[in-house]
Amino acid sequence: MEALKQQVCAANLDLPRLGLVTHTWGNVSGIDRQTGLFVIKPSGVPYDALTPETMVVMDLEGNRVEGTLNPSSDTKTHLELYRAFPQIGGIVHTHSPYATAWAQAGRDIPCYGTTHADYFYGPVPCARMLTQAELDLDYEKSTGLVIAELFRERKLDPVAVPGALCRCHGPFAWGKDPAQAVYHASVLEECAKMAMWTLQLNPEAQPVPQYLLDKHYFRKHGPGAYYGQK
Amino acid sequence: MEALKQQVCAANLDLPRLGLVTHTWGNVSGIDRQTGLFVIKPSGVPYDALTPETMVVMDLEGNRVEGTLNPSSDTKTHLELYRAFPQIGGIVHTHSPYATAWAQAGRDIPCYGTTHADYFYGPVPCARMLTQAELDLDYEKSTGLVIAELFRERKLDPVAVPGALCRCHGPFAWGKDPAQAVYHASVLEECAKMAMWTLQLNPEAQPVPQYLLDKHYFRKHGPGAYYGQK
Amino acid sequence: MEALKQQVCAANLDLPRLGLVTHTWGNVSGIDRQTGLFVIKPSGVPYDALTPETMVVMDLEGNRVEGTLNPSSDTKTHLELYRAFPQIGGIVHTHSPYATAWAQAGRDIPCYGTTHADYFYGPVPCARMLTQAELDLDYEKSTGLVIAELFRERKLDPVAVPGALCRCHGPFAWGKDPAQAVYHASVLEECAKMAMWTLQLNPEAQPVPQYLLDKHYFRKHGPGAYYGQK
Amino acid sequence: MEALKQQVCAANLDLPRLGLVTHTWGNVSGIDRQTGLFVIKPSGVPYDALTPETMVVMDLEGNRVEGTLNPSSDTKTHLELYRAFPQIGGIVHTHSPYATAWAQAGRDIPCYGTTHADYFYGPVPCARMLTQAELDLDYEKSTGLVIAELFRERKLDPVAVPGALCRCHGPFAWGKDPAQAVYHASVLEECAKMAMWTLQLNPEAQPVPQYLLDKHYFRKHGPGAYYGQK
Repeated sequence: MEALKQQVCAANLDLPRLGLVTHTWGNVSGIDRQTGLFVIKPSGVPYDALTPETMVVMDLEGNRVEGTLNPSSDTKTHLELYRAFPQIGGIVHTHSPYATAWAQAGRDIPCYGTTHADYFYGPVPCARMLTQAELDLDYEKSTGLVIAELFRERKLDPVAVPGALCRCHGPFAWGKDPAQAVYHASVLEECAKMAMWTLQLNPEAQPVPQYLLDKHYFRKHGPGAYYGQK
Repeated sequence: MEALKQQVCAANLDLPRLGLVTHTWGNVSGIDRQTGLFVIKPSGVPYDALTPETMVVMDLEGNRVEGTLNPSSDTKTHLELYRAFPQIGGIVHTHSPYATAWAQAGRDIPCYGTTHADYFYGPVPCARMLTQAELDLDYEKSTGLVIAELFRERKLDPVAVPGALCRCHGPFAWGKDPAQAVYHASVLEECAKMAMWTLQLNPEAQPVPQYLLDKHYFRKHGPGAYYGQK
Repeated sequence: MEALKQQVCAANLDLPRLGLVTHTWGNVSGIDRQTGLFVIKPSGVPYDALTPETMVVMDLEGNRVEGTLNPSSDTKTHLELYRAFPQIGGIVHTHSPYATAWAQAGRDIPCYGTTHADYFYGPVPCARMLTQAELDLDYEKSTGLVIAELFRERKLDPVAVPGALCRCHGPFAWGKDPAQAVYHASVLEECAKMAMWTLQLNPEAQPVPQYLLDKHYFRKHGPGAYYGQK
Repeated sequence: MEALKQQVCAANLDLPRLGLVTHTWGNVSGIDRQTGLFVIKPSGVPYDALTPETMVVMDLEGNRVEGTLNPSSDTKTHLELYRAFPQIGGIVHTHSPYATAWAQAGRDIPCYGTTHADYFYGPVPCARMLTQAELDLDYEKSTGLVIAELFRERKLDPVAVPGALCRCHGPFAWGKDPAQAVYHASVLEECAKMAMWTLQLNPEAQPVPQYLLDKHYFRKHGPGAYYGQK
């Protein structure tokens, strides 16, 4: 658990370094699938005050198991995503501005190029708005459930599409561990930016053809991958 | 008063650090409601030359009570806002570029998402243009009066909507103290940016539904707030 | 002349610090009106290699009076502006991206707000394209002559409008000395940026009314000025 | 070969310094035309872990001649460009965001101004999309062949037009050596940015007239060049 706290703390500190957050507007968590416990940033604490000791440990029933600070106000969303997507090991939420603009516009981010195709196998989907009933019942829990519903209904694999937009809110991204979740959040922001500019230059721009999407995604993922060092 | 001078000086220094000002184009003030005196940046002095001793102390009749430098040329606007909004303790004016673009476009900034809803309970309103008569009489004083009129006519609570745009000019923001005023100025700029991009992606974008606005604003404000540490 | 060389060198070093140049794409000069000699950046030398000793001294007939390096390739443009505008003491040319985009679009930058009105008394004018004959005769000299023609034909005062755009090229700005010229170049870039965003938000945006332009400009300039410290 | 490794390593390190890459999304190579060997960045290695020793040496048949790491996944594209363009000595590939947006929009970057004309003699061309057959056969090799085809069909001189866009992918740029290739990549990005903004300000913007293109390009290139120090 100490190693995970260090990883989660380090991943949170990467958010301002990568330009993904303003003020305290972002949080990273990581889960230990063996114990079923996850570690998350405390709520509203500035990044430069974070240490592994300030991290909060939660179980998947939503109980604080360790730590004295309140966990991130988005904790229940993380929890529902860990439940819905057993393959993932880390989650990040930010209000990074380009991805948030797409979320506020209520649009999926189309896959316009290889930068996107290298990490997201298809568009970054935008979830529907919560109903008032869902929000009144439990806002943060419902946010996670609506993302899970989105992946279920569209038959998306959360490993192949490691992020989503929450309508009128902002992006969530995830990965096999906290560091990869943050990496995916930064890819998502960069692709959101370039997709917006692509549309400015060509409002009729088309997504990459399927064969290019397949090529780039599987060049980096799966048994035939040949990017990087083995 | 020395403590307030330090707070106001520190808040002014936050402006360049947060990327809210170019050159000397911004100023922060703070008020001591007990004595009715407020402290404000001197006019045209570069931020790196500011010290608590260079701050200017004014009374609400517009007399300089302490300090040898001229106060900010916007001093009368600050003064009128302190008179009109007795709940506030700090004010900031900048020409931060995204908020200024909305002011120059003469448009309210709609509340398109939760980033905005967390701090501004509804659109950031844009005040009307001053008439020539108002300007000739007293430009800076009239600027403050027109913002006060805007809040009166639209029945806005300056605590729930801690900022406004001056038509063809730029933003003013405020808060319970100088530090919070600067925080709100930076939120306003970030939301102005994301709202512009939202419109580029979806010219028909709609503001958040009322229930989402309520949820986010009251998650952080009022008796039921649960964001951050208590 | 040594003092002027230092001023011109320092002003050139301000260009990268203010984010106005990429690579070596900008140059500043300053003139000593008593001797009629002006000092200018050497051509193609990186900013971090500039020292006062590397500056080149020219007379207004275009002869190199001092220095061993070639002067900026834009030297003849500076020369013609010094001849046409005897009130000015420093000139800067950059390819700063927002101002250059307006120049490439072939449009004056309208005065949409007080940031602009504080320093430029009206739109930043865009000069016409050089004819092929003008270009073949002497490109850099003609560039200066076309700017001078623009101010003559539109009856503009180069002190009140301290800059212009060269069609398909980029901005020139000037001032009473090299430091003020650079300050005006940075104002021009900031206003070019905000004016572009203003148009995105409101394609029908109108320039500020004349009485607001007068107020802001004369608040900072002329006998009734009251901005800053005396 | 050691000198070339150092040059290639240094040129790779310039990519993040010039803001041209996010994460590991860019690579530079350089060729020794006498031996026919080229040096290229290893695949997926972070820039701050690069040293001359980690560089990979390849021959033009695609064999690794020196080095223990895998070469960049784009190596075959570099190889085909070295074969097709015998005049060039260095190549760079990035996903720099403005150039990538043009590539994703599938548009040539028009020459709207002198910044562009100083380095690219005409538009930056956008190559066609690879067919599925080309991609299946050999994606990276085909990418190089399609760029070569583009220059052949449009009768472009790769020295006068030192870069191109790969449809739905991003830019390649080149030069006489690795350092100049990186310089051209940064010019390409800056011009891509300004061209996008030019179109926002004037959707009917026209490229520079031929005589201005000639003037600027030949002011810096060829026997009559007079920019910089001899």
